[in-house]
Amino acid sequence: MTLRIDPVSGIGDIEPGDDLAGLLAEALRPFGPANEDVVVVTHKVVSKAEGAIVELEDVGPDGHRQVVEDQAVRVLRRRDQLVIAETEHGFVCANAGVDRSNTRPGTAVLLPEDPDRSARRIRDRIGAALGVKPAVVISDTFGRPWRRGLVDVAIGVAGMAPIDDLRGTTDTVGNVLDVTEVNIADELAAAADLVMGKATGICAALIRGVRVPPGPGSVTTDVVRPPHEDLFR
Amino acid sequence: MTLRIDPVSGIGDIEPGDDLAGLLAEALRPFGPANEDVVVVTHKVVSKAEGAIVELEDVGPDGHRQVVEDQAVRVLRRRDQLVIAETEHGFVCANAGVDRSNTRPGTAVLLPEDPDRSARRIRDRIGAALGVKPAVVISDTFGRPWRRGLVDVAIGVAGMAPIDDLRGTTDTVGNVLDVTEVNIADELAAAADLVMGKATGICAALIRGVRVPPGPGSVTTDVVRPPHEDLFR
Repeated sequence: MTLRIDPVSGIGDIEPGDDLAGLLAEALRPFGPANEDVVVVTHKVVSKAEGAIVELEDVGPDGHRQVVEDQAVRVLRRRDQLVIAETEHGFVCANAGVDRSNTRPGTAVLLPEDPDRSARRIRDRIGAALGVKPAVVISDTFGRPWRRGLVDVAIGVAGMAPIDDLRGTTDTVGNVLDVTEVNIADELAAAADLVMGKATGICAALIRGVRVPPGPGSVTTDVVRPPHEDLFR
Repeated sequence: MTLRIDPVSGIGDIEPGDDLAGLLAEALRPFGPANEDVVVVTHKVVSKAEGAIVELEDVGPDGHRQVVEDQAVRVLRRRDQLVIAETEHGFVCANAGVDRSNTRPGTAVLLPEDPDRSARRIRDRIGAALGVKPAVVISDTFGRPWRRGLVDVAIGVAGMAPIDDLRGTTDTVGNVLDVTEVNIADELAAAADLVMGKATGICAALIRGVRVPPGPGSVTTDVVRPPHEDLFR
């Protein structure tokens, strides 16, 4: 089966209170999306629509730094301007997810309060507008230890489980695959970024021809590794 | 532009000495690949073709454990059977890349000695057979700190740079993107895995409609983070 990824254009800039999901549904309509498809949307427009933006000068003289400290529940590493921190969602990322790109100078965009809930709301709104409910993935761009270059990952999902659990199934020569849990949501987010880029103004993509693990599911619950099983926290 | 990913089937099981690149070229021929396309191939068939397989009983009574120790230049974490180790390439991964799935019981597959060189050889062979030279990405499946579920990443590339360096360019509102280097090779590997899966016997995928950073490039040189800039080594 051929997998197809189309950039979804025409959504434009988003301000707090905008009906992002409604705009997204109309932008998706020409593609005729189906229940089996996946819509990936970058968190930035989700955060903006939800009002998760701060005016840095309102925060204090070192606004960005203060906002990062406020969003961090724990700092893992710090070097010069770079802070690797854990957010209240349990994500570990640079600057606790606080982002100053693609937002008005003097402002910073935070992560959505509950990205899984944001994904569910967007999916429900698409369902109401179009009569179909594709899975929804909300993505963000994360760095990683040991490897240069950022990749997009999933920070929220709806209508799918993020992880395909293959444990107990067998490979092509009959060996039991005993440790293979594939993070399909992260692979979808990474794939979608290939048509979105960082500076093009495209904030969503439609992925067709993929089989996703049936939901419901949650990134916060299913993907964030609890501290007791994490070797690097 | 629509991005398309097709699974490339018909390559079958690979034994040491098999002409993997020749088989891959013939399997690609019906798709009519172009210079602008990307071929992603899982490292396992590359390693098998190159003879990077060990018979575990030849190694000793605790063969798998010994092979992992042999492949590791440094162990970062150890818990029960799980070893997170750095390989001589500089990759940090479980079991130093030693893999017992999709290989004959009693054997383990190692990483290719030089995956970038492997990618260049495959690309040259495809070029000789088909008269076109798509970029080549060799992938493997890695776990990550803090997030459950494995994703495919690039361990070798040819005909492209793995990282798209956007530093110094501007976003849609004119801010300079000062820290944005996107690992396109890793995103391609993750995307390709969506059509390959872990147990289906599909070892390659053809990606069309993507703009890759012009090469040459190297995962070992461009992606592996040197210890002095790594906060988690």
